[in-house]
Amino acid sequence: MASPRNIRVLLSYDGSRFFGWQRQAGFPSVQQALEEAIEDLCGELIRVYGSGRTDAGVHALGQVASFRLDAAMADDRLRHALNAHLPPGVVIRRLETCADDFNALHSARAKRYLYLTATQRFRPPFGEQYSHWVNSPLERSAMLEAARLLVGTHDFRAFGNAGSPRKTTVRTVHSLRIIARRERMAFVIQGSGFLYNMVRTIAGTLIDVGRGRLDPQCVSRALETGERTQAGPTAPAAGLYMLRVLYDEPVFRGPDRGPRGAPGLIP
Amino acid sequence: MASPRNIRVLLSYDGSRFFGWQRQAGFPSVQQALEEAIEDLCGELIRVYGSGRTDAGVHALGQVASFRLDAAMADDRLRHALNAHLPPGVVIRRLETCADDFNALHSARAKRYLYLTATQRFRPPFGEQYSHWVNSPLERSAMLEAARLLVGTHDFRAFGNAGSPRKTTVRTVHSLRIIARRERMAFVIQGSGFLYNMVRTIAGTLIDVGRGRLDPQCVSRALETGERTQAGPTAPAAGLYMLRVLYDEPVFRGPDRGPRGAPGLIP
Repeated sequence: MASPRNIRVLLSYDGSRFFGWQRQAGFPSVQQALEEAIEDLCGELIRVYGSGRTDAGVHALGQVASFRLDAAMADDRLRHALNAHLPPGVVIRRLETCADDFNALHSARAKRYLYLTATQRFRPPFGEQYSHWVNSPLERSAMLEAARLLVGTHDFRAFGNAGSPRKTTVRTVHSLRIIARRERMAFVIQGSGFLYNMVRTIAGTLIDVGRGRLDPQCVSRALETGERTQAGPTAPAAGLYMLRVLYDEPVFRGPDRGPRGAPGLIP
Repeated sequence: MASPRNIRVLLSYDGSRFFGWQRQAGFPSVQQALEEAIEDLCGELIRVYGSGRTDAGVHALGQVASFRLDAAMADDRLRHALNAHLPPGVVIRRLETCADDFNALHSARAKRYLYLTATQRFRPPFGEQYSHWVNSPLERSAMLEAARLLVGTHDFRAFGNAGSPRKTTVRTVHSLRIIARRERMAFVIQGSGFLYNMVRTIAGTLIDVGRGRLDPQCVSRALETGERTQAGPTAPAAGLYMLRVLYDEPVFRGPDRGPRGAPGLIP
């Protein structure tokens, strides 16, 4: 009997419908949804590996996961059939058989996240679960100044969560873009990896800089001292989207025939 | 003591957060949310009249309501203060003091609704509560043919709900536009008034015509025979938005300083 083949998938999911990526007894998770869809369809009890966890309420437009499967079904048919078995709120955009040594978590080299904030005066009546909201305009030039200080290799201890021990709190932020459109502000951040809550704390810091509650130089002080109190608050999960996971090799290069992520919601 | 002044408001709300417009014991409604915000703020127990009911799950971008109030607060301050007292999911976009004889329900001359359908192959992972979804493209030319047959003054009995007795089931549809954009299809319908479920049944009929399940001529047969079975199914509440209410006089003509409705969600 041949050994199971290795498969990777590109996923979109609505984080407001799950208690995060990771399986937890009694709470629906994206990992569980995938594992159950595979079991339903193929009768195989397997473990799905994600490129990283996302918390409850955090969305994904391009999460990557991998798993091993015996079933001989062609990739495209397998994707269709799995989508028919998945619950609402999660969809497999792409699926491909890949090299045996690919692992969505261990092979990941960088990640890109989007953070979305509405800046209109009144609480938006629609889509509270899809965007953060602050009731004031944000000063983009001050935010750009703070963003420039964050790019590069730094000890991001002040932006992480003290409760999560790590070998090192040094990370590299490759880029941090700030996009303003009408009454919306989006940050797109790419880095080699992120500490727990780091993207949301960077978002909360930039927003407070944009509102004038923090001075852009607070970023330098936070990076130098490593003190959590120098950085801004952790922004809510609702505004956060995992956009893309980058690997050494190009992944999912064929035409994207799956659904687009959140049309209209993303600038 | 002066008699209470008459006030009208323009409202947006997320229908997925309420059990419809109308007050019902034990279920949160938009009417109750408004009446309670007014009571909280002004200490006045009043009744708010809407231009018409919307069902649970049906959204509004431009619902109109009116009520009488003693409080002497300036219009703009009153709007701000009421918005601060309203729960998430409903917002007053505009508020103005109006003529004593204006009543949001009785003065209404026409209404405009939007029906939104996603036509991508897989169930969209985001925003299920904000759009209907069919997993096939829709043939716009066949739908336009059916739409042309609906415009005008007809007995719309076949498109209404048998359970709701009415003096007459004759209504006038002024216009019915069909807008296709990427993997979305929207209908904008304006009429003198609509029977219960009429907009959703027109939407369901047009969608089935677009999928080739119904022939455009079914509309003529439905209008001629008055038989409900000749029309298509009633499309789900999630796709329906009350867009605008029209009166003899222009209402809310100043600049709209309130929030826009559902940016990005509406084509």
